[in-house]
Amino acid sequence: MHRVKVRVVEDALDANATIAAANRADFDRTGVTVVNLMSAPGAGKTSVLERVLGELGDVRAGVLEGDVQGSLDADRLASLHLPVVQLNTDGGFGGECHLDANMVRSALPALPLDDLDLLIVENVGNLVCPAEFRIGEDARVMVSSVAEGEDKPLKYPLMFRACELVLVNKVDLLPHVDFDLDRFLYHLEAVHPGVEHMVMSARTGAGLDAFRDWLAALPARRRVPA
Amino acid sequence: MHRVKVRVVEDALDANATIAAANRADFDRTGVTVVNLMSAPGAGKTSVLERVLGELGDVRAGVLEGDVQGSLDADRLASLHLPVVQLNTDGGFGGECHLDANMVRSALPALPLDDLDLLIVENVGNLVCPAEFRIGEDARVMVSSVAEGEDKPLKYPLMFRACELVLVNKVDLLPHVDFDLDRFLYHLEAVHPGVEHMVMSARTGAGLDAFRDWLAALPARRRVPA
Repeated sequence: MHRVKVRVVEDALDANATIAAANRADFDRTGVTVVNLMSAPGAGKTSVLERVLGELGDVRAGVLEGDVQGSLDADRLASLHLPVVQLNTDGGFGGECHLDANMVRSALPALPLDDLDLLIVENVGNLVCPAEFRIGEDARVMVSSVAEGEDKPLKYPLMFRACELVLVNKVDLLPHVDFDLDRFLYHLEAVHPGVEHMVMSARTGAGLDAFRDWLAALPARRRVPA
Repeated sequence: MHRVKVRVVEDALDANATIAAANRADFDRTGVTVVNLMSAPGAGKTSVLERVLGELGDVRAGVLEGDVQGSLDADRLASLHLPVVQLNTDGGFGGECHLDANMVRSALPALPLDDLDLLIVENVGNLVCPAEFRIGEDARVMVSSVAEGEDKPLKYPLMFRACELVLVNKVDLLPHVDFDLDRFLYHLEAVHPGVEHMVMSARTGAGLDAFRDWLAALPARRRVPA
């Protein structure tokens, strides 16, 4: 009985990998570089995007907004005049706490992939499950707010290991919270040696140039295997 | 095929309800009042507990710490000299993003229930899935940090609807973040009319008396149905 159960779980994971590969093929065919953007609730994913997506030069960007419910974040990005598609996990997806390859696939027809160079997929705010599901992306970026505490890499190691870039956000709050940046980076290095990080404040704008440049250069960089 | 899948999901939910009822029976038999404490990662659950659990008067409290990995929070609470048991969801539970009734049940033998009046179950940091699983508790309390933003009740309505009390934490940061407390409370009232809330800062200690009194009085209050 136990063996049967394991088999079913493996099949489900394979299904995600299969669909992620199909997404990937569509992204390759249309020449779109895809970033899976993840964080805990309220770490500042949307605020960072508001600050950088309007200034990517020739790079044509679009956003797929993942939320359990509502379109608040998509509405916030509307002023950027980019293609923004809202994907809610409560409509037909059971209120899932993450995006998977099939949910992303269901939204692709609504996106003008042929007219995009870069697609940002803003995942559901959650530090656990989103890290377990590839969606066919080129890179995984996560945002960690200094208000959440310096212990987060140790408590949610899979998420910090799963990403290629960590954005340490809300550093304008450093004088007002008990957060030792060096200790956070020490913990980050312990769970994901060598991972790239950038320190920033979406509120003040400090440090955002580096991420803007990173995003703008991404379509030209060699893609990593899905 | 689709019908079979739905049937399996219903069975799984029923299993949780069955085990939650068994937990409940154990709590009733031993006279323990149980609080399920939930929040996003880094909202301050452990910091609030550090501030209040040592000052509950005659109420004998214990803690069940739920984390994906590690025992950082349990270690922090050790100085309170209360019974603290660590429950990791990555050991045999697949790295789950929430506690369910069966995980809690597995930890009960490690807790001195006969010697407790109050048991706090600190759930995994996550604003989605923990709200979907009853564990046999008397009350569900959630912590929402002002650093997370005033839109959270609208984005994660199930969590804000599932709890009997909302702790609005880190209000010492109000001068430094874009968070309108009245607007947050308006959103909270919209998704959960009449729900009780308390405003506090675990860092400064402001507002914690109300929660301490609420907890201390809980064992004497009439229990709500599981």
